[in-house]
Amino acid sequence: MTAKKISIAVIKRLPRYHRYLNDLLENGIKRISSKELSIRMGITASQIRQDLNCFGGFGQQGYGYNVESLYNEIGNILGINKTFYAIIIGAGNMGQALANYVNFEKRGFKIVGIFDSNPEIIGRKIKNLKVTDIEELDDFVINNTVDIAMLCVPYKVTASIADKVGRLGIKGLWNFSPMDLKIPYDVIVENVHLSDSLMVLGYKLNEKFERD
Amino acid sequence: MTAKKISIAVIKRLPRYHRYLNDLLENGIKRISSKELSIRMGITASQIRQDLNCFGGFGQQGYGYNVESLYNEIGNILGINKTFYAIIIGAGNMGQALANYVNFEKRGFKIVGIFDSNPEIIGRKIKNLKVTDIEELDDFVINNTVDIAMLCVPYKVTASIADKVGRLGIKGLWNFSPMDLKIPYDVIVENVHLSDSLMVLGYKLNEKFERD
Repeated sequence: MTAKKISIAVIKRLPRYHRYLNDLLENGIKRISSKELSIRMGITASQIRQDLNCFGGFGQQGYGYNVESLYNEIGNILGINKTFYAIIIGAGNMGQALANYVNFEKRGFKIVGIFDSNPEIIGRKIKNLKVTDIEELDDFVINNTVDIAMLCVPYKVTASIADKVGRLGIKGLWNFSPMDLKIPYDVIVENVHLSDSLMVLGYKLNEKFERD
Repeated sequence: MTAKKISIAVIKRLPRYHRYLNDLLENGIKRISSKELSIRMGITASQIRQDLNCFGGFGQQGYGYNVESLYNEIGNILGINKTFYAIIIGAGNMGQALANYVNFEKRGFKIVGIFDSNPEIIGRKIKNLKVTDIEELDDFVINNTVDIAMLCVPYKVTASIADKVGRLGIKGLWNFSPMDLKIPYDVIVENVHLSDSLMVLGYKLNEKFERD
């Protein structure tokens, strides 16, 4: 673990650095300057230097960054070398999309269960997992390591399911329901608001093309 | 349109302000100070004042912000009073999840078509739309207004479909495939990387609970 506290704004950019560095590695590129990285990523070089300085700064004047060590270091900070065990609650379209999303496992997130309350879906196989009755959630969590619950349930039951997740002692909650969840437990919640990114796209379209 | 150029970092926070203000409105709250908004949103009051100053600043000393006018103004900046016509390309789980996502229409994004190449899916009804053969995409775009293509296709065909979208003159591309698309057309691309937000959750879990 790094000693220095890194701001969450920087942390939020790290997965992007990590992706770009991975691309570079796969293309056999061994070192890169903050300027080149800047052009590829669309972030200013000074922002990049400032971000990477936060955790020690691996750049060398006139040499740039060693791609592999920077990639590994960012991976360490993000905890990619660790495994997080996750369950999906809600096996509708979004839950199934997450279950089929190949990139999670590569990043250390292993999906170990998928739950639903709909008798028509329970028992169905999604990828290598059988959809389990939500009634069995308590037993499952008691008998297995579960770090993260991915919530893909309808809006109206989100709060009660989140409460259940908190009571069961699951420490991380990744919420896809369009509400900013706050729950009275020691749980870290990341709310995903898909439409936020769509609204940014709408703004950029307006600004550029001035539709009426 | 506002005269002043607003930075994209501020724009990215506007959907969140918009959501919070909507909650306040629905709870009958008429005005709010930057401090109260700060507590609710987990952003510093000074950041909030700075953000809202970017587009004129509607706060009054000792009174705070008028919730409704701030809500409306942010909506205007985001172009929520306009309608964007969108199509979904790829009617797998993610495409279906998007088609069923109720919040888009409320924010001015109207889904007018959904396309796939799989004969088993073509013709199926998702919400009020019939899945159309991707072969008919060109005709559809020529005969209908399409501002945005939501890309939910497998990784290996993403680049070629994105290229097609560009050639057809669609101006906005919302990409769910885990790659940072860049295409040689005058298209605005928003890449959605679901795992970025999951990695931030992983980081926070590590930091707080120091799992090994």
